[in-house]
Amino acid sequence: MHGWRIIVAVWAGAFGIAGCTATPAPQERPAPRPPNVVIVFADDLGYGDLGSYGHPEIETPTLDRMASEGQRWTNFYVGASVCSPSRAGLLTGRLHVRSGMYGTEAGTRVLFPDSTGGLPADEITIAEALRAQGYATGAVGKWHLGHLPQYLPAQHGFDSWFGLPYSNDMDTTVRLENWPLSPEFHDPRSEYWNVPLMRDGEIIERPATQETLTRRYTEEAVAFIEAHADQPFFLYVPHTMVHIPLFRDAPFAGRSRAGVFGDTVAEIDWSVSEILGTLDRLGLDEQTLVVFTSDNGPWTVFREHGGSAGLLRMGKGTTWEGGMRVPAIFRWPGHIQPGVIRDIGSTLDLFATITALTDGSVPGDRVMDSLDLSPALLAGEPSPRETMVYYRYDEMYAIRKGAFKAHFITEGEYGEGGPRTVHDPPLLYNLEHDPAERFDVASAHPDVVADLVAEAEAYRASLELPTSQFDTRTGG
Amino acid sequence: MHGWRIIVAVWAGAFGIAGCTATPAPQERPAPRPPNVVIVFADDLGYGDLGSYGHPEIETPTLDRMASEGQRWTNFYVGASVCSPSRAGLLTGRLHVRSGMYGTEAGTRVLFPDSTGGLPADEITIAEALRAQGYATGAVGKWHLGHLPQYLPAQHGFDSWFGLPYSNDMDTTVRLENWPLSPEFHDPRSEYWNVPLMRDGEIIERPATQETLTRRYTEEAVAFIEAHADQPFFLYVPHTMVHIPLFRDAPFAGRSRAGVFGDTVAEIDWSVSEILGTLDRLGLDEQTLVVFTSDNGPWTVFREHGGSAGLLRMGKGTTWEGGMRVPAIFRWPGHIQPGVIRDIGSTLDLFATITALTDGSVPGDRVMDSLDLSPALLAGEPSPRETMVYYRYDEMYAIRKGAFKAHFITEGEYGEGGPRTVHDPPLLYNLEHDPAERFDVASAHPDVVADLVAEAEAYRASLELPTSQFDTRTGG
Repeated sequence: MHGWRIIVAVWAGAFGIAGCTATPAPQERPAPRPPNVVIVFADDLGYGDLGSYGHPEIETPTLDRMASEGQRWTNFYVGASVCSPSRAGLLTGRLHVRSGMYGTEAGTRVLFPDSTGGLPADEITIAEALRAQGYATGAVGKWHLGHLPQYLPAQHGFDSWFGLPYSNDMDTTVRLENWPLSPEFHDPRSEYWNVPLMRDGEIIERPATQETLTRRYTEEAVAFIEAHADQPFFLYVPHTMVHIPLFRDAPFAGRSRAGVFGDTVAEIDWSVSEILGTLDRLGLDEQTLVVFTSDNGPWTVFREHGGSAGLLRMGKGTTWEGGMRVPAIFRWPGHIQPGVIRDIGSTLDLFATITALTDGSVPGDRVMDSLDLSPALLAGEPSPRETMVYYRYDEMYAIRKGAFKAHFITEGEYGEGGPRTVHDPPLLYNLEHDPAERFDVASAHPDVVADLVAEAEAYRASLELPTSQFDTRTGG
Repeated sequence: MHGWRIIVAVWAGAFGIAGCTATPAPQERPAPRPPNVVIVFADDLGYGDLGSYGHPEIETPTLDRMASEGQRWTNFYVGASVCSPSRAGLLTGRLHVRSGMYGTEAGTRVLFPDSTGGLPADEITIAEALRAQGYATGAVGKWHLGHLPQYLPAQHGFDSWFGLPYSNDMDTTVRLENWPLSPEFHDPRSEYWNVPLMRDGEIIERPATQETLTRRYTEEAVAFIEAHADQPFFLYVPHTMVHIPLFRDAPFAGRSRAGVFGDTVAEIDWSVSEILGTLDRLGLDEQTLVVFTSDNGPWTVFREHGGSAGLLRMGKGTTWEGGMRVPAIFRWPGHIQPGVIRDIGSTLDLFATITALTDGSVPGDRVMDSLDLSPALLAGEPSPRETMVYYRYDEMYAIRKGAFKAHFITEGEYGEGGPRTVHDPPLLYNLEHDPAERFDVASAHPDVVADLVAEAEAYRASLELPTSQFDTRTGG
């Protein structure tokens, strides 16, 4: 155990291994009771896909207003650049590789309908932590942490769930060839999709009528808030959109000049406006922390049906910034100091941040990768996060510390960005001077390279890889 | 003349050939007197270099506030992707090729210290138009429309001028080799620069002390406003920065985490705050239209010392969007309807817009490329501009009409983006669905291609190319 303790100590600063005691809430917080928490989690929405993040065509008035009323973070990361591991990281506050939510080859980077694994029972989610504090907990949207009964939301702290068990493109009535270029993937009226819609453990509709999915998610979210207005609640809304195939309800067809993708983002924006409007109507505005972010970067391989990472390089699936840096907006009127935050943060940090804000605690019996961002949110203090690791499969491809990011391995996606390439010495980018990762400055900063190599080695050593949850597929 | 009149008629809709009569101001405008006009024109500032345009690191609080108080345009173009022709287009409301402000080979794309040409005397600038209406007119900053006496600001309508005759990198004490990669170009303390600073027709400092240039421009601009607070004034502030070599005053060194480039933008932002603060202090806020924009896209060849076009493709010198689409912010409290405008506009339109807002008129004896944007500014009406042409040298490389842009020729810059390539049929991009110009959709829209080809041909036919002002260099 001696070696392990040393490793824990090494990573305590950077990755926030909390002790067994409850994290006290900051003194400044004048909340009369622990706040409600709403997390709206878009799917495949890129860093550059909101108006406030610089998109020239897509209109997101609600999210932009939410940003101006709260904090908009510009260096905010997911734990992984694809669905299942990113979601595992958000809900557990632990990098996905710690919970086995990884695969080791191309066909097992996420869970599929024939996968037999899922989020292990001994993982503790934000929902479980908050339920233990008396919160009502609800999930509305895409789960994708295991579709077998033992892995569903009910087993991970959610009182209720309405949504899809996995991605909306994963279940088809016929075998679709020439992925991703077949017209079906770009036709929002396609009849090939067969994904089920579930309520709690039951399939209630198959195929799910995807045109009305965002609207129905929104209605469910609003109903959940209305039903729990008198008690603390945690509502997790992982939208199915804007993952392909893109669907939006009739009123949004043609709404955006940015095409179907813009329409679909517009409906997500509308959905947020319904949630914020409900909080306002019920007088819960100042009692509710609302977080908006995305599970990974844009799936650019789907051309106009994929989003944009703005100035960032590449997108979903990669460990370039475009794959893992996402929009992140926090709103809690009267509590959060409005502004643009350029410090580093992560969806991994939501666990520690939310439990800090709700007088809860993080599990003390395991290594956590979650840091408490509440001093940044409430008082504009510097973010405690200085380091971010970028895993693909079970390998660290890159690491960021402060301004610098070292790439040990780079790999594109589906013909874009080149094949897997090992870099020894690593590529080095100064993300503050060069957020687009254009200029390798490794030769000018050997000391930085050495430091990042050492950081990476220490992090790798802190990992005890459990069995992969993704590697087993029945092929059914 | 018959054919000519037909051509004028063809282009009246798209490029705004105004008649001989004064353009009436919109009914809504409650200004007690024609507004003052301030144009702040940054140099080489890219589409993505402001916080409100999505840059994750560069902080521009004043410009972002100006955007939230006024209108931020996301499809706003310069008339050309390099300095001299872009400036000619802004000040005359005519595409640079109409005034001879073009060159026909690589060494004559702009004016150099040994050029013998400049903006012809018979061109009419915004300053001349406004001076004829009784405005005081001042220029503070880089001119670059001819450094010989007959071409200086005094000959083009400006009562006063303080600034540089051309770019800050154009006059060196020694011959600098290996442009643009020599360290001198990236060293803000370099002693190689020898550009003169002028007041009206006299050189008052050589080399200009560039560290204090932005500060001194600002002081001159403030003094001009203070001196003319009691009469209508037009102040044109074409900053020398953020053109390389980058210089900023001591208080801004290290101000930005985005490095020297970020520092330099921060000083420009501060400069705008001084101008806005002066207007506020003098009670001129609601009597003054302030416009902020840039002369072309970022000079990305200078690596970390060049800016960013955000999600747009390529930068300065090219006819990709990154070369010609720029930030554009309009502020006139109490008059401009705040918002984000996604319609098309251009610096070419400032002439017609400003003269409309000031009860003036555009010249009726020549072809203009200037459209009145005031209904969009004052009442949120659609922009009258549907078409934009992209010239490089004396050739039309591309044309945009509505959402679609056709490239007839593409050409990169200094090793980036490939050699000159003729496209027949042209490349076609839907800029609303694909602002990054990633997906050629020509084969799906032959009708659009045909329409754009016809538009381009009509525009070319409307041009009578005068002698190039740029082609003659003495080699001195």
